Amino acid sequence: MTSPTTGATGTTPTGADDTPPGTAPTGTTAHAARPAATAERVRADYAALKARGLALDLTRGKPSPAQLDLSTGLLDIGAADLGPAGAGADHRNYGGLAGLPELRAIFAEVLRVPVEQLLAIGNSSLALMHDTLVHAVLFGVPGSARPWGAERTAVLCPVPGYDRHFALCEKFGLEMIPVPMRDDGPDMDEVERLAADDPGVRAIWCVPTYSNPTGAVYGEETARRLAALPAAAPDFRILWDDAYAVHHLTDEHEAHEAHRTHEAHEAHEAHDQPTRPDGATTPAPAPAPAPAPAPDILALCAEHGHPDRAFVYGSTSKITFAGAGVAFLGSSPANVEWLTGHLARRTIGPDKLNQLRHARFLRDAAGLRAHMARHRALLRPRFDLVERVLREQLAGLDGATWSRPRGGYFVSLDVPDGCARRTVELAAEAGIRLTPAGATFPYGRDPRDRNIRIAPTYPALDELETAMEGLAVCVLLAALERS
Amino acid sequence: MTSPTTGATGTTPTGADDTPPGTAPTGTTAHAARPAATAERVRADYAALKARGLALDLTRGKPSPAQLDLSTGLLDIGAADLGPAGAGADHRNYGGLAGLPELRAIFAEVLRVPVEQLLAIGNSSLALMHDTLVHAVLFGVPGSARPWGAERTAVLCPVPGYDRHFALCEKFGLEMIPVPMRDDGPDMDEVERLAADDPGVRAIWCVPTYSNPTGAVYGEETARRLAALPAAAPDFRILWDDAYAVHHLTDEHEAHEAHRTHEAHEAHEAHDQPTRPDGATTPAPAPAPAPAPAPDILALCAEHGHPDRAFVYGSTSKITFAGAGVAFLGSSPANVEWLTGHLARRTIGPDKLNQLRHARFLRDAAGLRAHMARHRALLRPRFDLVERVLREQLAGLDGATWSRPRGGYFVSLDVPDGCARRTVELAAEAGIRLTPAGATFPYGRDPRDRNIRIAPTYPALDELETAMEGLAVCVLLAALERS
Repeated sequence: MTSPTTGATGTTPTGADDTPPGTAPTGTTAHAARPAATAERVRADYAALKARGLALDLTRGKPSPAQLDLSTGLLDIGAADLGPAGAGADHRNYGGLAGLPELRAIFAEVLRVPVEQLLAIGNSSLALMHDTLVHAVLFGVPGSARPWGAERTAVLCPVPGYDRHFALCEKFGLEMIPVPMRDDGPDMDEVERLAADDPGVRAIWCVPTYSNPTGAVYGEETARRLAALPAAAPDFRILWDDAYAVHHLTDEHEAHEAHRTHEAHEAHEAHDQPTRPDGATTPAPAPAPAPAPAPDILALCAEHGHPDRAFVYGSTSKITFAGAGVAFLGSSPANVEWLTGHLARRTIGPDKLNQLRHARFLRDAAGLRAHMARHRALLRPRFDLVERVLREQLAGLDGATWSRPRGGYFVSLDVPDGCARRTVELAAEAGIRLTPAGATFPYGRDPRDRNIRIAPTYPALDELETAMEGLAVCVLLAALERS
Repeated sequence: MTSPTTGATGTTPTGADDTPPGTAPTGTTAHAARPAATAERVRADYAALKARGLALDLTRGKPSPAQLDLSTGLLDIGAADLGPAGAGADHRNYGGLAGLPELRAIFAEVLRVPVEQLLAIGNSSLALMHDTLVHAVLFGVPGSARPWGAERTAVLCPVPGYDRHFALCEKFGLEMIPVPMRDDGPDMDEVERLAADDPGVRAIWCVPTYSNPTGAVYGEETARRLAALPAAAPDFRILWDDAYAVHHLTDEHEAHEAHRTHEAHEAHEAHDQPTRPDGATTPAPAPAPAPAPAPDILALCAEHGHPDRAFVYGSTSKITFAGAGVAFLGSSPANVEWLTGHLARRTIGPDKLNQLRHARFLRDAAGLRAHMARHRALLRPRFDLVERVLREQLAGLDGATWSRPRGGYFVSLDVPDGCARRTVELAAEAGIRLTPAGATFPYGRDPRDRNIRIAPTYPALDELETAMEGLAVCVLLAALERS
């Protein structure tokens, strides 16, 4: 089904050859490789590329202005709705540390956390992860014998992974242990081996839905094994960053069908909803039914005797406004009590007015899904374009593989071994900014120097096409230099 | 000028008798003491009070609903202003860690911090103090040999002071050393003695303008001595929480005249500005000139060879919405770089849209002052009422003194020694909630058990009157029981 060495596939650091046929939810069907470009042609292409004097950026997973426009209606929810008369309570004053119940109810469903165990605080889930680690390092979590900072603490990092997760570990002096990423989550044999043997291994980073950057979707079986994991550390934690819980690019959900017990298919009707200027109060007429959610990690952990094992994170950063959204943290009652005890000394409460704006704008989980269908209509052409250019330009290149994600914000491109750093360098010289090579690995060390993260959401389509074609030229030249 | 044992005065933990005549900015003129209430009358009054079955709350410094209504216009600043077209830039996306320059410019003037050294982040200055301490404890500040958490660290705490400052110290295991509070700041002889002798003394809490709870206003001389302090610790820090920088209750500024080089008097015209429903875009027609600001602590520190000594904090919590405002932190370039380096791993940026709402609503420092004049019109009657009831009910009670603040959110009441805890208990039994006795001291230990913090801003005037009269009865009964 996949053509591991000559086309699109799920990326795994141990080589696409390791992927058993039929298990790669991000794979495409095989296609004919076009003839390899000649060396002269590649050099000429690169010279021409440089001569264009581009200034393009594929570095960060940011929503485009058109995506932000989808939430314009949120900005027009005013005093009539937000004041005490319209809100039914006074949300303007101090208090309400856990966040606004109406908004938490919407995301409780999406993130699979009981609403009373879900906090809505601040505008950044990264900040909530940071603060979880701050308090773990300084004080330990429930079940810790000592603060994490007082003894050796290591964190399992599925790779390639999210650079900001790794930056947090580095900051707090937490050792990072890479674990190969598969298409349905990390290599669980390896996770089990590492966690069972080493009491210093206290956590694992997970992006369960459309993992950053590979697009991998954690299956129920992966989640069950994480929940059941016989960790040597009694205070082992799963840092479950469900950043892309509702960020689907497809309505087919083959990935879910293969790996998850899904509830319903997303309706076709929602796919091409036009962008409505009054999106705030008028969800799409026929909202899509709930797509397959991530595994219910809190329930699985409780079921397997580890009720306090998982912290779940999410945010509206890529739903409403990346800078002005709302972040969420959900966990067991004991963990929530632990964290709110600490947070109560930090703040008297979150911005409940912005939470109320969000609750009024999104209305409910169905409204949220309808809103995400509008994002998908904007994002899908970008991901299709990336796939098309990579296929057209790199299908003939031995060792080049890439993910074809069904959701999320990234495409993970593996270039031939030893070529990633040089590719990024060549692209920078041609005015195309890429995430630094190695960024998707702890300490910036990609052992095969091959992974590049592509963030196609922000640029306009024509710019994206130019950038992707330029990137392909750089990959070909880097491979040529190395051959 | 003051009548230390029988009337209103500045409160100092070493006794009002220590206050030299003429230096008490919070004092009132002496007045005739009314005859002491008879024991029978006091007991009967308390029985009657209990019989009323009240449920009143004087615990926290919260703005009243009418104060929050002053900022209704902020909620109606919508997409036309906040979107890229109206804003002149796209503030909806990630980024801009330092906060919105337009808003920082307004508060740079008020907080006396160069705009490029002032950050606008989150909705809570307490959170910024918390995070400063987190990073000091884990990593040390510029100039630290080791993290504050890795060696004995003590913090000087002027008393009575702010319970949430003390709670942060307790949380991070920072020893607290009380220092007597005077009417122009802490007892600087004591501060100098403690900091010069002990390299473990690394910080001091300061609320320079209308200190919580005494209303003390730090004078230029106090600030100069703090800046020049020959601290044994090379990484000594002044935690300068200017929470009430623009929260004036008077337009006379005797306090400033005595202790500060002030720029101008506040104009009478601004005093009784009516509340405007369109307050957002229409500042009062004749905005008050700038009142005397707090000493320029950053400049003073630099002048005295300690450029990295001070962190300045502020927020709009008691200017716009207590839950949905904006917090500020200003410091030296080195400190700002240190902190933003840490914060950059925590978040990709603050809620710039809410900052833009604030900038549009307040417009400039003059608009901010006009807005604060409207707060003053609502607050002044409450503080006048507290003063009147205390004078009428407690002027005859030996050992009862209280502050008459010219700004801020609190009145500090000293009851006869050994009577504070009992007073709070009696009040609770009568349905009047007060801040716990001792809360204004580190570890909750008021050595003379006499200080009670009164927060008069939130209740309606008639409720406040009932609560204050009830409180006075409780003070008299507690004193009677002890006599």
